[in-house]
Amino acid sequence: MALKAVILNCTLKKSPQVSNTRALIDKVIELMKPLGVESEVIRVVDYNIPFGVSSHEGDGDEWPSILKKLRAADIVIIGTPIWFGVRSSVAQLVIERLDGTYGEGDPQTGQFPLYGKVAGVIVTGNEDGAHDAAANTLFNLSHLGCVVPPNSDCYWVGDAGPGPSYIEAGGDKHMYTNKTARYMAHNVAFFAKLMKQNPIPTNLKQLIADAKKASQDDCPPRHGA
Amino acid sequence: MALKAVILNCTLKKSPQVSNTRALIDKVIELMKPLGVESEVIRVVDYNIPFGVSSHEGDGDEWPSILKKLRAADIVIIGTPIWFGVRSSVAQLVIERLDGTYGEGDPQTGQFPLYGKVAGVIVTGNEDGAHDAAANTLFNLSHLGCVVPPNSDCYWVGDAGPGPSYIEAGGDKHMYTNKTARYMAHNVAFFAKLMKQNPIPTNLKQLIADAKKASQDDCPPRHGA
Amino acid sequence: MALKAVILNCTLKKSPQVSNTRALIDKVIELMKPLGVESEVIRVVDYNIPFGVSSHEGDGDEWPSILKKLRAADIVIIGTPIWFGVRSSVAQLVIERLDGTYGEGDPQTGQFPLYGKVAGVIVTGNEDGAHDAAANTLFNLSHLGCVVPPNSDCYWVGDAGPGPSYIEAGGDKHMYTNKTARYMAHNVAFFAKLMKQNPIPTNLKQLIADAKKASQDDCPPRHGA
Amino acid sequence: MALKAVILNCTLKKSPQVSNTRALIDKVIELMKPLGVESEVIRVVDYNIPFGVSSHEGDGDEWPSILKKLRAADIVIIGTPIWFGVRSSVAQLVIERLDGTYGEGDPQTGQFPLYGKVAGVIVTGNEDGAHDAAANTLFNLSHLGCVVPPNSDCYWVGDAGPGPSYIEAGGDKHMYTNKTARYMAHNVAFFAKLMKQNPIPTNLKQLIADAKKASQDDCPPRHGA
Repeated sequence: MALKAVILNCTLKKSPQVSNTRALIDKVIELMKPLGVESEVIRVVDYNIPFGVSSHEGDGDEWPSILKKLRAADIVIIGTPIWFGVRSSVAQLVIERLDGTYGEGDPQTGQFPLYGKVAGVIVTGNEDGAHDAAANTLFNLSHLGCVVPPNSDCYWVGDAGPGPSYIEAGGDKHMYTNKTARYMAHNVAFFAKLMKQNPIPTNLKQLIADAKKASQDDCPPRHGA
Repeated sequence: MALKAVILNCTLKKSPQVSNTRALIDKVIELMKPLGVESEVIRVVDYNIPFGVSSHEGDGDEWPSILKKLRAADIVIIGTPIWFGVRSSVAQLVIERLDGTYGEGDPQTGQFPLYGKVAGVIVTGNEDGAHDAAANTLFNLSHLGCVVPPNSDCYWVGDAGPGPSYIEAGGDKHMYTNKTARYMAHNVAFFAKLMKQNPIPTNLKQLIADAKKASQDDCPPRHGA
Repeated sequence: MALKAVILNCTLKKSPQVSNTRALIDKVIELMKPLGVESEVIRVVDYNIPFGVSSHEGDGDEWPSILKKLRAADIVIIGTPIWFGVRSSVAQLVIERLDGTYGEGDPQTGQFPLYGKVAGVIVTGNEDGAHDAAANTLFNLSHLGCVVPPNSDCYWVGDAGPGPSYIEAGGDKHMYTNKTARYMAHNVAFFAKLMKQNPIPTNLKQLIADAKKASQDDCPPRHGA
Repeated sequence: MALKAVILNCTLKKSPQVSNTRALIDKVIELMKPLGVESEVIRVVDYNIPFGVSSHEGDGDEWPSILKKLRAADIVIIGTPIWFGVRSSVAQLVIERLDGTYGEGDPQTGQFPLYGKVAGVIVTGNEDGAHDAAANTLFNLSHLGCVVPPNSDCYWVGDAGPGPSYIEAGGDKHMYTNKTARYMAHNVAFFAKLMKQNPIPTNLKQLIADAKKASQDDCPPRHGA
């Protein structure tokens, strides 16, 4: 059973500039390949993706074609550099555009398009910020419906302050990053197979109906209390 | 198949003071019960838990008895209030103590004690901070080995600024919280069963050995570059 | 003495769409006016601002004209909506572009262009995330050289989950937001005057020279230890 | 004019254990001394400080004596290690206890006890998390009334993954940390003098009265909309 991973590289740099994040992404791809995972990398900044929170932001918007690939994937991975201690603006843009999928649930179950897909995150920075970038990104993807396996992140950062990035610093020889890249590859592959064989049965529509009975439906608009 | 959830209530208030976080925890417990989940709530601040990053911090430390329960659980949920926009000091203390489990991996697989357990988080605050509290907590638990299902968090917060807390504000009638409590209950129950039947096969020990070959083992200590 | 504030509205929505963040920005502007502060609001998304970390990203880049205004300002305020619990991609883009100013220090003192300017932040969201957005933004601005007065943020968020935004929810009547808007207005105005009369004397160039003596200058490149 | 700094060391380790954060604190103290700043370091975990959000948590609570020193200080610095990507539980405990000061404003101006004091933060970790720890801590202190000068943080972190801490890694020779320690020392000293000579005139009580007129005072309690 072939598994499909779509990896969004959220570097700020357009092709063909060298992307450090891409270098680490490539490492993870190589590790997933023998586990039956075929990967496609999309460098988001090479496309015309307007700011917004819907799946279609008008003429020329190239997000729909990316979203189509995400919907067909078993594994969704976001690769991002760190800037000022957090994930890149491009990564944030991607997450914002995914907001549109909340309204595109399955007619029967209400499950969002990313429901049951397996999430991972790959982060590089010349220093500090990987936890924040990874935690927010995985949490956002879990809200959008993804499953987060154990150790589903992989990052490299240098020590305090500006300094060489992943490639120049020889990050490909960094033990911790190489170890966690393997954890991630094995766990996302295992979970992708598992979720294919065991789709999540949760019926969100039914649960919304149940929640309505337990909640106030007729309350007035919020006041400035 | 009975499933066991251990829920750590990380309120700052000792029993028998009223805990808003406990009120929301109780709601999730009721929702999980018909799904075959038996829950135990531990109010951490009622115990003597010294600060530290090991599983045993000397005489009088009551953490080992809590950790024993976590190790026997299928589902690990952290309930926390928000203070100053982030999770409580007690929640942070719990996460710090769990650092000790990294060194207590399975002799064969190296999997940490929480590997394959299902994580959830329950957050209450009178305003703002739920995303930060939930994202960091779920991410930390995923590093410690837990699986994070989709929508595995449940929170209530009021609007900007100080104001009534969950109970006083009638949060139990809040539609969004009631909806997501149901998502969470159903998804953690499903995943707990799934993980029992499909243990994660990843052999961390083997992957560490593989990573060593790909890394520099003989590099000098880090310099102040 | 007239004081000048430049306020970057980092909404995702282009003009003339209604911006909730703009509504709260306007309130702060009105409060600062009688304190001698003239404000200019720039809706960033109306301009062509490429992703990047320099002050000039090639032909058509309209960032330089915005940066020129920031350099001439006494007060720099970032207004941002919250998406997925954090500041908008546009706000992150602005911060990333400001990275370029680190290399544009004063020839004598090394002080970055924003040194001694007064920072503030204005945040709106239909729920949760204001602390994270404000904390990161003010911290980033402080790294770039700005002074952060007490209570230099102003935000409105609704309660948990999707819901009406600032305008629709009647946020202009929200006591906490109105209170903190006044704290912010008075404190940024006071500090802007204070900094004009008392420029920061710190000579970064000299301190870098001092630090070099205390540090290792000849250390090898970082290894993958 | 002598300036007084109180530095709370929020290490998890009781005296006389070696604290890496203390080592970096000592460096900053040495740098501030020739600038007229006398420092006192308090290792919080050596005292009996119960969890809570008031200034007095009953018999045996030693927080009041620490708070007294903070109230008498010109400069308030929090030193914290990083655990799991964020500030320590002890640092969070300190911030929570400071919540009590909001209710102890000046009878005339309503200014909180920390109003106009200068804030700084010192962070050490063996990897990643300094931005999150510093941003949240400085933001919280700014809400409590402190002024945050430019570059008022100083941190050391190693590269990705577990590794040697500040002392063992030779962090005292780290150029970036040594540079920023100097920035911080000079800026907090300058601002402490400046604030002594120019107390913030903002009358919070008056502004609250003004805000009430602009807000809804008679709104009903928040509903679960």
